Amino acid sequence: MAMINKQVLLASRPTVEATVDNFRLVETPLPALAEGQVLVRNHYLSLDPYMRMRMNDAKSYAAPQALDTVMIGGTVGEVVDSKNAKFAVGDKVVGMGGWQQYSVVDGNLPGVMRKVDTTHVPLSAYLGAVGMPGVTAWYGLVKLCMPKPGETIVVSAASGAVGSAVGQLAKVRGCRAVGIAGGADKCRYVVEELGFDACVDYKQHRDAKSLDAALAEAAPNGIDGNFENVGGVILDAVLRRMNAFGRMALCGMISGYDGGAVPLSNPSLILTQRLRLEGFIVSEHMEVWPEALKELGGLVATGKLKYRESVAARIEEAPEAFLGLLKGKNFGKQLVKLI
Amino acid sequence: MAMINKQVLLASRPTVEATVDNFRLVETPLPALAEGQVLVRNHYLSLDPYMRMRMNDAKSYAAPQALDTVMIGGTVGEVVDSKNAKFAVGDKVVGMGGWQQYSVVDGNLPGVMRKVDTTHVPLSAYLGAVGMPGVTAWYGLVKLCMPKPGETIVVSAASGAVGSAVGQLAKVRGCRAVGIAGGADKCRYVVEELGFDACVDYKQHRDAKSLDAALAEAAPNGIDGNFENVGGVILDAVLRRMNAFGRMALCGMISGYDGGAVPLSNPSLILTQRLRLEGFIVSEHMEVWPEALKELGGLVATGKLKYRESVAARIEEAPEAFLGLLKGKNFGKQLVKLI
Repeated sequence: MAMINKQVLLASRPTVEATVDNFRLVETPLPALAEGQVLVRNHYLSLDPYMRMRMNDAKSYAAPQALDTVMIGGTVGEVVDSKNAKFAVGDKVVGMGGWQQYSVVDGNLPGVMRKVDTTHVPLSAYLGAVGMPGVTAWYGLVKLCMPKPGETIVVSAASGAVGSAVGQLAKVRGCRAVGIAGGADKCRYVVEELGFDACVDYKQHRDAKSLDAALAEAAPNGIDGNFENVGGVILDAVLRRMNAFGRMALCGMISGYDGGAVPLSNPSLILTQRLRLEGFIVSEHMEVWPEALKELGGLVATGKLKYRESVAARIEEAPEAFLGLLKGKNFGKQLVKLI
Repeated sequence: MAMINKQVLLASRPTVEATVDNFRLVETPLPALAEGQVLVRNHYLSLDPYMRMRMNDAKSYAAPQALDTVMIGGTVGEVVDSKNAKFAVGDKVVGMGGWQQYSVVDGNLPGVMRKVDTTHVPLSAYLGAVGMPGVTAWYGLVKLCMPKPGETIVVSAASGAVGSAVGQLAKVRGCRAVGIAGGADKCRYVVEELGFDACVDYKQHRDAKSLDAALAEAAPNGIDGNFENVGGVILDAVLRRMNAFGRMALCGMISGYDGGAVPLSNPSLILTQRLRLEGFIVSEHMEVWPEALKELGGLVATGKLKYRESVAARIEEAPEAFLGLLKGKNFGKQLVKLI
C-alpha cells in the first residue's frame, strides 16, 4: 500500500484578504519513484510573504500559483528513498518541496535541490539565516544599500528572518543598525538579543509626527541605507529622514499585497535627496548566493548571527501560520514542522 | 559716471504659487573692477525650473536663494573689461552671471566661468543643448537610464531643453524614443523635427485610463528607461508601463514645486518590476561634463542635435517668462535676451 502524503493546495484566490478557505488539505498516495527521482521527507516548511503574491492572478515578479496545486514553498528534509546516484538515503537537503510532507524530486534537474552540512548549522537554519531570507538580507544590504562604516542603516520588520539578518550584517560592517518593529517585545529582542543600536516600535507611533520623532531619535545622523520590508507609512517616514545620496533596497511592500495600492507620500524627496531606490527578488541574483551563504554560514556557526524561529507544529496549521505571518504575528522565521 | 546694471532680485518667497511680486527689478551702478576681476556683458540668461526650488526656504538639494539678492542663473556673454590675464576683451564666456545685464566675476575662481568657441556652435546653445540642460539629459540618459539598442526610452517635457536632448541622444543609441508633451504642436515638433518615434499629448488624455492607452500605443514593447521631468500622474502612468529591470532617472518633479507633495500612486511596482529609480542633480557630476559636452557639441555642430529656443526680449520680462516656464508655456529652451 502506498504511503500517504498530506499536502496543502491553493483552493481559491483571495478576493481581498487571504483566508484559510483559500487553502485545502488533501491526502495523496505517494507514487513509486522513477529512475533519477529522489523521495524526500520534508522536516520543515518555510512560510514567506512572497507566497501571498503568488496567490493572486496578477502581474508580479512571480508567476501566479495554479489553482488546485500544492502551494509552493522552501523545505529542508532528508532523503528517504533514491533512484539517483547523486543522492543517498540519509542526505540532508534543501529545496522547494512545497507545502507537503514528502516531495518526489528529479535529482538531475540543476538547482532544484542541494545537500547541506548540518555539522555546525542546524537543518532549519537553511530555511532562514543560511537560506533564502539570509541571502535576501545579504543581497539587499551589501549590493543595494552599500553600507560604509559609520553609516546608519534602517530595516523594517526588524525582528523577522530577513530584517534580523540585515541589522546584524550591518553591525558586522561597522554601521549603526536601526530596526523598526511592531511591539515592545520585538523591539527589546532586536536591541538586546540581536545587538541593533536602536529599534522604533511603530505601534507606539501611530501618526506621522510621532513616528518621525522616534526615527529622529533612533537615527540622529539621518539614514544612509534603508532595507524596506513593509512600505506604506513606515516607508514614508524613513524617506523623510534619508540623507543625501542614500540608498533603498525594496524587498517587501507587504501592506500592498491585499489588493489596494499604497501610495508613496512624497516621491520628490527621491530627487531632492538624490536617492537610489531599487526593487529586487533574490532568486534573480543567484551569482551572489555562494559568497552570501559562506558569510552567513560562518556567522551562524560562530554564534555571531542570531535568529529566532516561530514553528507551527503540524502541516494542518500551515494556513493559519501563514495568515499570521502576513499580519506580523510571528516572531522570527516562520516555519512549519512536518515530522 | 558709473554704468547702470539692471538686475532682478528675489523680493519675497512664494506662499503657494510663485508670482511676479516675488521679484523686483533694480538699477545698480557697476563698481570699478578690482585686480583679477572681469566685467562680462551678459547676452542671454537661462531660465530653469530649479530656480523655483531655490525661491523656497525649504530642505532641498539647493541652498535657498537669499532675499534681496540677484536671482541665480546661467548666462552667456562677452568680456567687455578685464583686470585678469586669463580673460581678454571680446572673449565669449559661459557662467552663472545671474538675472542681470552685467556680471563682475573673479576670473581666478576655478569653475565659475569658462571661455567657449562660437565657430560652429551658437553662443546661446551653451545655455541649452551644449550646456547644463544638455549635460543633464546626457547624464540621466547615459548614466542612469543606461539605454541599450532596441530598448524604449520615455521622456516627459519632451519638447523642452532637456527632454528634446534626451530623446535625440536615445535615438543616436538605437533606442525607440517616446516623448510626453502638452499639446499637439509640441508633439508634432518632437516627432517631425526632433525625430522621436512617438509622442503622447497628455492634454488629450486627462484620465489615467486614457493616458495608459496612449502610452501603450506609443510604447508597445513597454518602457525600459524613463527620464522623468514632471512627476505626478505622468510618472504614475509611466511606472505602470515599465518593463522588468527598467531604470528611471528622476530629474524634475515640477508638479510638486509649489508646496504640496504629489504622491506616487503605486510604489510597489518598483518592487514587482525590480526597477531602479535615482534622483540626480547634474552639477554634482562634474566628472561627466567633458565627455558629455564633447558629444553634445559635436552633434549640434553637425546638425544632428536639434533644439528650439523661446526668447524673452528684455530683462524686464524675465519674471513673466520664468512663471510661464513653470506652467509649460515655453517651447524649447527658455532664454532671456539681455542685449
